[in-house]
Amino acid sequence: MPLETAQSNPVTIACIQFEPKIGEVAANLDAIEERVRTAHAKGAQLIVLPELADSGYVFDSAEELAKLARPIPDGESAQRLITLAAELDVYIVSGLAEVAGDTFYNSAMLCGPEGYIGTYRKMHLWYRENLFFEKGDLGLPVFDTPLGKIGIAICYDGWFPETFRQLAMKGAEVICVPTNWVPMPDQDPEAEAMSNILHKAAAHSNGLFIACADRVGTERGQPFIGQSLILDATGWPLAGPASREEEDILYAVITPSAVPAKRKLNEFNDIFGDRRSDVYG
Amino acid sequence: MPLETAQSNPVTIACIQFEPKIGEVAANLDAIEERVRTAHAKGAQLIVLPELADSGYVFDSAEELAKLARPIPDGESAQRLITLAAELDVYIVSGLAEVAGDTFYNSAMLCGPEGYIGTYRKMHLWYRENLFFEKGDLGLPVFDTPLGKIGIAICYDGWFPETFRQLAMKGAEVICVPTNWVPMPDQDPEAEAMSNILHKAAAHSNGLFIACADRVGTERGQPFIGQSLILDATGWPLAGPASREEEDILYAVITPSAVPAKRKLNEFNDIFGDRRSDVYG
Repeated sequence: MPLETAQSNPVTIACIQFEPKIGEVAANLDAIEERVRTAHAKGAQLIVLPELADSGYVFDSAEELAKLARPIPDGESAQRLITLAAELDVYIVSGLAEVAGDTFYNSAMLCGPEGYIGTYRKMHLWYRENLFFEKGDLGLPVFDTPLGKIGIAICYDGWFPETFRQLAMKGAEVICVPTNWVPMPDQDPEAEAMSNILHKAAAHSNGLFIACADRVGTERGQPFIGQSLILDATGWPLAGPASREEEDILYAVITPSAVPAKRKLNEFNDIFGDRRSDVYG
Repeated sequence: MPLETAQSNPVTIACIQFEPKIGEVAANLDAIEERVRTAHAKGAQLIVLPELADSGYVFDSAEELAKLARPIPDGESAQRLITLAAELDVYIVSGLAEVAGDTFYNSAMLCGPEGYIGTYRKMHLWYRENLFFEKGDLGLPVFDTPLGKIGIAICYDGWFPETFRQLAMKGAEVICVPTNWVPMPDQDPEAEAMSNILHKAAAHSNGLFIACADRVGTERGQPFIGQSLILDATGWPLAGPASREEEDILYAVITPSAVPAKRKLNEFNDIFGDRRSDVYG
């Protein structure tokens, strides 16, 4: 790991790739806690967990989801993570099944030593998620933390380049991506995952760090592809891709504070300054 | 090659990777003509050439560029391509150094059997291009041809996801990319080129075909990286990447007419319909 300097403010980030079990909230929270403690013991300051890490993904029915979803930040899952973050002095981003009144969201929560920080609700819902969840209504928030400016995107959000561009233009220096990537119909299973390609392109063209924590395993016949990934602001991997099948924890040292300066590419070019907002808004 | 059907309208596309010589317009046009005839003889109907294919790239001075740039469509370079397209009954997209009055543009022209069709002027100028060229003032046109709806982007335009998104939303089914890719400072020379990654992501997330024709060789100390590429609307390569150093012609059969239907991914998801224009415009 590089030495800390006045100019850079290095942060050790971890992506936890594991296999949540559908319907087993308490057991999933136990599994999360164990892995967060492991990552903390290895020096992680910012820890990213998969999408719907507390509930599992393949719901049989709305009634099943209703039994698993919890309010944020007052529900069992959020409270457990908030308590853990305070105890360990770490920041955690985790996908959670959220209920708000009688509405369900595929959400992710950020918490830290200071407690609950904020929630992002997935804006682009993939396939049968549309049967169970409402589309996110909180926009694309960027959270200003002592570690850096953190944005969140979830899985299919990454298929929309606007997600990353909007977060970048709102100041995000690192985007945490809780995800449950599934195989693409057109994907050669031996080739690099298109999800990895999309996030490399996003990190490079926006000049920011991206940390994707995927799940593994097969749930009710639906396989997930692993290959969690931590990307430098150049778009090149700092850690991963992780295994396609096995649980793993990826670690990397990132410098969110260096992002604004890196977006100035040379004496002529600047990632944001070169945008033709006169043409495309 | 697949059989032609009523539903699909296959088009054979070719990307010509070659080495223009700085300052040698007549010789470059001869080299282009020879390679276009070869591609036509192999069945190509739509032929893409590199950026600034008639002039070369590394200008010493504005005065040098002024000697090489030609009006479009009335100048020598454009007229030569227009005549060739009519004779061979093909469509050609080529990067050309354009002068319009006393203004210079890094442009690309589309012509076909019916003659001159249109011009695109590069909107995002890389590095020292800013010393010689004005930024494009023609927006991102989409040209409706008998082969399909064709958009054009040039090199650094591809670093802006907005380029592809705007062209896609304006109806483009295939984007032709004349380019002069240079090594990235942060690129492992053995790894896949970031330019290839960016265009794979763009083809996939917009559901359209992309054909990149790069140059090779080293000009006044500036190396170019080859690796021309023709991408399916899924983002996966149909041809290429070509060699990093050698001249080559890539061929692929694409079906531009199939693009609109392919953007409907399943009963819930549609690439454009899922966009959250309420959030990001």
